[in-house]
Amino acid sequence: MVKQSAVDRVFHALADSTRRALVERLSQGPASVTNLAKPLDMTLAAVVQHLQVLEQSGVIRTEKVGRVRTCRIEPEGLKVAERWIVERRALWERRLDRLGDILAEEEAPKPREANKDKEK
Amino acid sequence: MVKQSAVDRVFHALADSTRRALVERLSQGPASVTNLAKPLDMTLAAVVQHLQVLEQSGVIRTEKVGRVRTCRIEPEGLKVAERWIVERRALWERRLDRLGDILAEEEAPKPREANKDKEK
Repeated sequence: MVKQSAVDRVFHALADSTRRALVERLSQGPASVTNLAKPLDMTLAAVVQHLQVLEQSGVIRTEKVGRVRTCRIEPEGLKVAERWIVERRALWERRLDRLGDILAEEEAPKPREANKDKEK
Repeated sequence: MVKQSAVDRVFHALADSTRRALVERLSQGPASVTNLAKPLDMTLAAVVQHLQVLEQSGVIRTEKVGRVRTCRIEPEGLKVAERWIVERRALWERRLDRLGDILAEEEAPKPREANKDKEK
């Protein structure tokens, strides 16, 4: 259950385009809250709130030194969502592979039919 | 912009735990709307609405034959979110690698300093 809610928090965090823009900016390197807010057309308080959602989901971590809070990517957080998607896709693709095998077996002539062909 | 809104739709679709449960079920194989609704504690109409969000995001596709609508995973939809995450993580990790290189260079003795050591 703990794991499920971690998945929940990460997908919720990434479902917002402003938060994804913050992650995009941070994937290029750590940045202070003030610098992250500069290009965005919103109040500093709103940016701080988005950063809190990202931090609580584990996608970023922040550290305050003196008066400056610096944010950086926490790759393990992103991996939670990545793993969920990859596992679902892998399950589906394995199923398609098995189906392909079954179809191939059905298309191949059965032993008895193969013998019939020889008798002709 | 079209690409951005596709990312938006997929993350929004996956941010809901019921919709992720539907994707989990479908990753094991196609299913009818009725069968998908059975284990869920909600109205058929609510399930249909969740399936519509998933279909509009491209994560699943549905097909109606007679009176039965069958749903299945559309792996390309999941890949949209997967690619977004993997690209952000790759950017961050490349940056860490470059930082590692710079630190390693700084730690290695400079030619002049290396000579000084020899003179001792």
